[in-house]
Formats: sequence, C-alpha cells, structure tokens
Amino acid sequence: METLALPPQATQVGLAVDVAAFAMHGGELQVLLVQRGELPHARAWALPGGFVHPGEDLHEAALRELRTETSVTLEPRHLEQFYTFGAPGRDPRGRIVSVAHLAVLAHGAVDVTGGGHTLGAGWFPAHRPPALAFDHAAILTRALGRLRVRLEYAHLALEFLSDTFTLPELQRVHEAILDRPLDKRNFRKRLLAQGLLVASGERRSGVGRPAQLYRRAKGARAAAL
Amino acid sequence: METLALPPQATQVGLAVDVAAFAMHGGELQVLLVQRGELPHARAWALPGGFVHPGEDLHEAALRELRTETSVTLEPRHLEQFYTFGAPGRDPRGRIVSVAHLAVLAHGAVDVTGGGHTLGAGWFPAHRPPALAFDHAAILTRALGRLRVRLEYAHLALEFLSDTFTLPELQRVHEAILDRPLDKRNFRKRLLAQGLLVASGERRSGVGRPAQLYRRAKGARAAAL
Repeated sequence: METLALPPQATQVGLAVDVAAFAMHGGELQVLLVQRGELPHARAWALPGGFVHPGEDLHEAALRELRTETSVTLEPRHLEQFYTFGAPGRDPRGRIVSVAHLAVLAHGAVDVTGGGHTLGAGWFPAHRPPALAFDHAAILTRALGRLRVRLEYAHLALEFLSDTFTLPELQRVHEAILDRPLDKRNFRKRLLAQGLLVASGERRSGVGRPAQLYRRAKGARAAAL
Repeated sequence: METLALPPQATQVGLAVDVAAFAMHGGELQVLLVQRGELPHARAWALPGGFVHPGEDLHEAALRELRTETSVTLEPRHLEQFYTFGAPGRDPRGRIVSVAHLAVLAHGAVDVTGGGHTLGAGWFPAHRPPALAFDHAAILTRALGRLRVRLEYAHLALEFLSDTFTLPELQRVHEAILDRPLDKRNFRKRLLAQGLLVASGERRSGVGRPAQLYRRAKGARAAAL
C-alpha cells in the first residue's frame, strides 16, 4: 500500500460554510442573520456559518450551522451550494474558504433565538440588511442574484409558500425577490404559460372575490443546477 | 491591534481547483483531459487542476492550472466556478476540497501537449470519456448539467462558435451538449424567439443554398449566475 500525504505545494486553508437563509414575512423577503459573539467582527451581524467539522460533508455542515446558530427547527425547503468565496484576505485570521449555501424556509413565523457562539439571531429585510461582517454583504448579494435566476427558470418561488397558494401570493414572492412591483396581468399570463402550476379546484375566501388556489404541477422540475 | 489566528476548531484542508474545459471539434462536444504523472492515480486521465497557490484567487488558479497542465494558449471564452467538491475521502492524501470550474474554448483546432506534472493532454468525447481519476467523473457530469442549463436561458452556446455562425452550426452545438438530435424547425423557432441572435446580413456559401449568418444580439445577456 502506497503512503500518501498532502504534497508540500498544497495550500492549507480553513474550510467554512455560510448560509443565506430566506423566508417571506409580512410580504417581504427576509434573510436570517446572527450577531457574532467572538472576534473578529464581534457584535456585528453575519450570515450563520462556521467551520466544517472533520469527516463532515459540506451540505451537512451548512444544515448544522444553520440550526445551531439560529435555533431554527424548520427543515429548509431548499438548500443548495451556490458559490465558494476564497479570495486571499477575506478573513483576518488566515486563509479561510467559505462554501456559501442558499436556503429557503417555508412561509410562516419562524422563531429564532440564536445559539452556539452567537449573541442572538433575527430576520432582516434581505435587500436592506444591516452592515455585515467579513464579505457577507457580497455573499448576500450573490445569493439574491441566484434567487432571481431561479425565478426565471425553476419553481423555487413556490418553496416560499404553502402547498396551495393564490396567484397574488406567488406574485408577492416574485416582487419581494426582485424588489420591484410587477404587472399583474403579464405576471399571470407568463406564469400560467410556464405550466408549473395547476388550479387545485379550491378557492380561498377573504376580502372580495374568493381567490383560486393553485398547487405545483406534478413533474414540474426542481430548481436545476 | 488584536492578534487573530485560526481557531482550533477550524478544519485545515488542501485547496484545489479543477477545470472542465469544453470545445466543439468535428461537430462533437469534447473535454480537455490530462494524463496524471504522479500518485495517486498515476497514468490515469483527469481534469486539469491542482493546488491553489498562497495569495492566489480561485479564478486565477483555475486559469493557471488550465494553461500549465495542457499548454492551451487560447483564452477561455467563458470561465465560471460551478460547484465545490468537498466530501471527506474524495482524495486519499487527506481532505482536499476542489472548487470546480467550467471553461468554454472557442471553436477551432486547439493543440494540447500537456505540461507541469502531466504525461500529456488530449481532447476526448465529453459524453463518453475514459475512466477518470478521483471523483472527476462526477465533476464532469455536473459540468455537463451546468452546460445544459446554460443552453436554456443564456447565450453560452454562442461561445463555442465564431463571431458569426449559421443556425445549423448553432443547432449542432446544442445537440452536442444535449447528446441528442433536435428538430430543426422547432429549434429555429425557439432560438429566434429568444431574441439572442440577429441576422448579420451576410451569407456563407457552401454545399446547397448559401446559409444566413447570425451574430449575437447587442445586449444579449451573458451567462447568468
């Protein structure tokens, strides 16, 4: 059996994950942040994240950090790795590479209290967050870009909603991600043409005319690569 | 000034990049491979790649490895990071994380001779490659998936061609990436409806009727996130 070791030219780096977790609250797209309890950037807000454990996969590490640092108990409806940030100098402690993940949590109240080394956790407007530690503002910006791309060609917007939803609810998700209002008529026409939705046959009563409820079409493909 | 160091819980890993570089040759989608000259997997074919240098950015490292290991001198038309492979055990030398990149080289003959620690380099059918070292078969599969997604909503296919091209040439790129034939009439209709192309006004003579030449529409957006 040959003995193998890391060759001397292998740059050793710290391996971390960070998670941009989004949910809709009050018609607004919000991102989950934690307040750091440690140097560097102590007391600053940051995306939940931390070092990958030995023997742990990247996806596992992202789930673990999301749960322990924010106390979120909901399973993410969607979790994908979207970009790896590895510029030298992005962390003052040494070279640390962060594999950034995008998470979508379902509609509804999601209590967070913080945990792990954090001082607390909270939901913030995704497009207008507070100042963030490290390069987390750039990570959040890129996560929002990925969300926008997912709107165009995959059904990721549906993951923000309950299993059945009205078209105005879905339009609000799109508007919240794009951070601009959309024309109702064009939105309906384009969405229904994509074949991602089917009418559930039920209606939801509320103010005014009961709204048609929709659900995801069977076979509507998941968010692609 | 506070002194900062990597905390003890920071898993130290080797940081690498690998590059799946594609080009069209003879109407076929091909991928650029190198023959490894070192353990592990000595003599096996692999994607070009290697360790990131200290102080070097990921994108820079991908370009450097592509150039030095294959002797390709052409600038890639497109180079994007697409996924990071970090499963424990993917490399027998220790924990090595690879930030995988996708490159597209322009149409035309691209000579490769190998370099660096490789025994040689060559172009291979992307959908039917030889056995590959490490988890490079999985990296290649995911790169092909990303290429397919790019076909649907961005103009990445155009990067495989010259500045002007005929619709049959573009259809051949799509077919080569999808690894299946497409209906000519539907393809033309769909492509022209996307508004990515404009007729150049010129025609290319050849066998049969001279073919209309197209070019990329100004403002056609680049491959998105």
